[in-house]
Amino acid sequence: MLRRLFTCTLFLLSATASRYPSFGTLQTNTSSGIMNVVINNTFSTINLIDFHILADLANLIEDLQQNDTDVRVAVFSSANPEYFTAHLDLNFFLPGYESPLPLLDPGNPEMPFPMAVLYNITQLPQATIAVVEGRARDFGNELILAMDMRFALNSPSVQLAQTEPSFGFNPAGGSQFLAQSLIGRGRAFEYSFSSYNIDAVTAAQIGWVNRAFDTQSELHTYVQALAGRIALFPPAGIQATKAGINAVSLIPLDAWIQQARNIVEVLAPSTAAQELLKKYMRVTNNQTNGEVELNYGNGEDVVELLS
Amino acid sequence: MLRRLFTCTLFLLSATASRYPSFGTLQTNTSSGIMNVVINNTFSTINLIDFHILADLANLIEDLQQNDTDVRVAVFSSANPEYFTAHLDLNFFLPGYESPLPLLDPGNPEMPFPMAVLYNITQLPQATIAVVEGRARDFGNELILAMDMRFALNSPSVQLAQTEPSFGFNPAGGSQFLAQSLIGRGRAFEYSFSSYNIDAVTAAQIGWVNRAFDTQSELHTYVQALAGRIALFPPAGIQATKAGINAVSLIPLDAWIQQARNIVEVLAPSTAAQELLKKYMRVTNNQTNGEVELNYGNGEDVVELLS
Amino acid sequence: MLRRLFTCTLFLLSATASRYPSFGTLQTNTSSGIMNVVINNTFSTINLIDFHILADLANLIEDLQQNDTDVRVAVFSSANPEYFTAHLDLNFFLPGYESPLPLLDPGNPEMPFPMAVLYNITQLPQATIAVVEGRARDFGNELILAMDMRFALNSPSVQLAQTEPSFGFNPAGGSQFLAQSLIGRGRAFEYSFSSYNIDAVTAAQIGWVNRAFDTQSELHTYVQALAGRIALFPPAGIQATKAGINAVSLIPLDAWIQQARNIVEVLAPSTAAQELLKKYMRVTNNQTNGEVELNYGNGEDVVELLS
Repeated sequence: MLRRLFTCTLFLLSATASRYPSFGTLQTNTSSGIMNVVINNTFSTINLIDFHILADLANLIEDLQQNDTDVRVAVFSSANPEYFTAHLDLNFFLPGYESPLPLLDPGNPEMPFPMAVLYNITQLPQATIAVVEGRARDFGNELILAMDMRFALNSPSVQLAQTEPSFGFNPAGGSQFLAQSLIGRGRAFEYSFSSYNIDAVTAAQIGWVNRAFDTQSELHTYVQALAGRIALFPPAGIQATKAGINAVSLIPLDAWIQQARNIVEVLAPSTAAQELLKKYMRVTNNQTNGEVELNYGNGEDVVELLS
Repeated sequence: MLRRLFTCTLFLLSATASRYPSFGTLQTNTSSGIMNVVINNTFSTINLIDFHILADLANLIEDLQQNDTDVRVAVFSSANPEYFTAHLDLNFFLPGYESPLPLLDPGNPEMPFPMAVLYNITQLPQATIAVVEGRARDFGNELILAMDMRFALNSPSVQLAQTEPSFGFNPAGGSQFLAQSLIGRGRAFEYSFSSYNIDAVTAAQIGWVNRAFDTQSELHTYVQALAGRIALFPPAGIQATKAGINAVSLIPLDAWIQQARNIVEVLAPSTAAQELLKKYMRVTNNQTNGEVELNYGNGEDVVELLS
Repeated sequence: MLRRLFTCTLFLLSATASRYPSFGTLQTNTSSGIMNVVINNTFSTINLIDFHILADLANLIEDLQQNDTDVRVAVFSSANPEYFTAHLDLNFFLPGYESPLPLLDPGNPEMPFPMAVLYNITQLPQATIAVVEGRARDFGNELILAMDMRFALNSPSVQLAQTEPSFGFNPAGGSQFLAQSLIGRGRAFEYSFSSYNIDAVTAAQIGWVNRAFDTQSELHTYVQALAGRIALFPPAGIQATKAGINAVSLIPLDAWIQQARNIVEVLAPSTAAQELLKKYMRVTNNQTNGEVELNYGNGEDVVELLS
């Protein structure tokens, strides 16, 4: 895997070959124990979480697992001003689609591959931070929920949601993270059932994200100071603290697996979901930037569009 | 069972005979997948949760269980401007009282009947919403907590509480819902131990209810739009999402049963509780509308009254 | 056992001999079912939680366990205006230190002694309240988290934190209480990993403490009214309510024990932690009041000092 690392303190990632093909959708830059990862899916106008990003994330996870003392904090942001990561490539759920990735994770053969990416992020030896300046819906939101912390920009571009129920299936872990450990049962029901977007300020008020910032400068200054501070501390303490927090607040693995398999095996293949997915592909011109991708979940127009 | 259904789109409920006698305390109106249920206990001035409401709720639950695709959302409100539902009929705990209802639920013989009503609500295939414009204390509050979502009016009439500790017994599930999934352990202790009321705005700030609205118009507009949106989506997705959220945030059944049985079998029959219950019956003129029912839990006067 | 109960006078605790030597660091005053406990470690300028306080707390716990009906509420405050309780005596973790206390709790031989003090507080038959007017970090913060409720003064002296990660080990239960039952997973990661202080107002906003008050008068008035109200109610109801809330929101004992033993047996003895601990002892002049104890965790200066 080729990486360009431009920092004063260069960090050599694992020399072993990557397990999955590499697509260059993650630009990494490591310095002083902090790896900044910029998500930039050049195959998509919406930072779609397709097999390119998933393969690159899986490779990155293996690198981070093996560099548990040199890299102490991983900070994820997006190169796309409108989308942190839009959502999972819905082609995964349509007949005839063949992914170059395995269906189930080799390391966790009970887990569909995308879920294993999320689960493996929760188990990284690093502190993980999402810097959210754009939309993150469905699997895109689950990606930021799988990270330890989330900081968001107070901007109309930040719209978080779990919109799977609007397609007739369930979020895989997303609503569970929200209900068990972040916003409580009542609000997890409200946002999940409705597939409504939440903005950054409301998300910070109820605990969906850690904090919201009015300017990009404030957001990045806070996160880099936080990351820099964490990176000064001995990694063993960070890892033991993470194990302790995970032991009491990570959603139960069996419930998470059940939700993920239910989508893949039962609900996404259902007639109702298939019809809505196909409609969505049409009205978004196969998941490209436009009115529907920008505004899905706002509640005024998109429901009528789809139903 | 007689029902009057006034909507354009009439919905025929289960034709099978109701399991329990019917008392007409629930007025239902179904349209476009939404059932609006108005709680109106004409046998009580305070929407007391007596055997009339419990029997009607148990029948309604069976109907809803059997109509899991036609009815997708159930919205509960009250016809009594001062009380959503005041509390459980305390006669249940006094010697000599005979209820026409079984003591334990036939479907869940470990559960006292009233607890089974709450548990069965959490398992309904519909999304459930409480529209709270009046007092809901004790079992009345547990009823709104058993629903998926709660929206409240910013009004002096809205006073939520778990006041069982003031009588010498424990809430059955109420404090557990609050502690585990809504307001956190510290605040659940504070409101439970003190038996204090909470108002709508504070309740929304800490997560006891989803949101508070300043006017009835805003409240009902929001809830009907929310319900209408949910009802557009395929029911299988709503049900799978509910199963996922329940799997991680519903209070453990054994702990809930233990709390319910402890009241019925041990604490309510205790001398201390019996004395307080009898005093309460006297000062409320057997649970009728008046100063004590209106203000119980406010902390200024009622404590002295009872102790 | 003889009891003398009258207001405004001292309350004679259990006449049986105390299990541990007594050091007079806890001044108690019981009246009308409320025990006010003032923490005043005269062996320390920072209300350090050393063996004096731990022995006195362990004795007090046994007394409270045996006085489960006369004392119904225990309210803990501090005589030190700058510190509720600073943190655990770090000498515990340095070689050659010999405590007069057992390493493991006789009643819970799986638990390191300090952890057992916290655990036993969560199991007391009384309602427990912390009145926080000064700093509480590490074990000091865990002490207030082990109590049922926490009320804080809006004052620069109130700084709460879990700063163990800055030393290379993990909090023992503290981050777990925060993540599972109080502030959610994302914020528990942020404050734990960073070892940042939180102030009273922010702590009340996110649920770390129940409420923040602008003046000492408001704080004490609220807490004494709350305690007085709880003390009017039959103790059996308070105890059953506490058992119910604990059953769903107390952190799992095995995860807590694992975290506590990991510190004692693995991480505090590590080279990295030992170096930081020794530095800390030097720059604080063996944990005495001064700039470092006052400002540790503020993020501007102390990190550089230590690393």
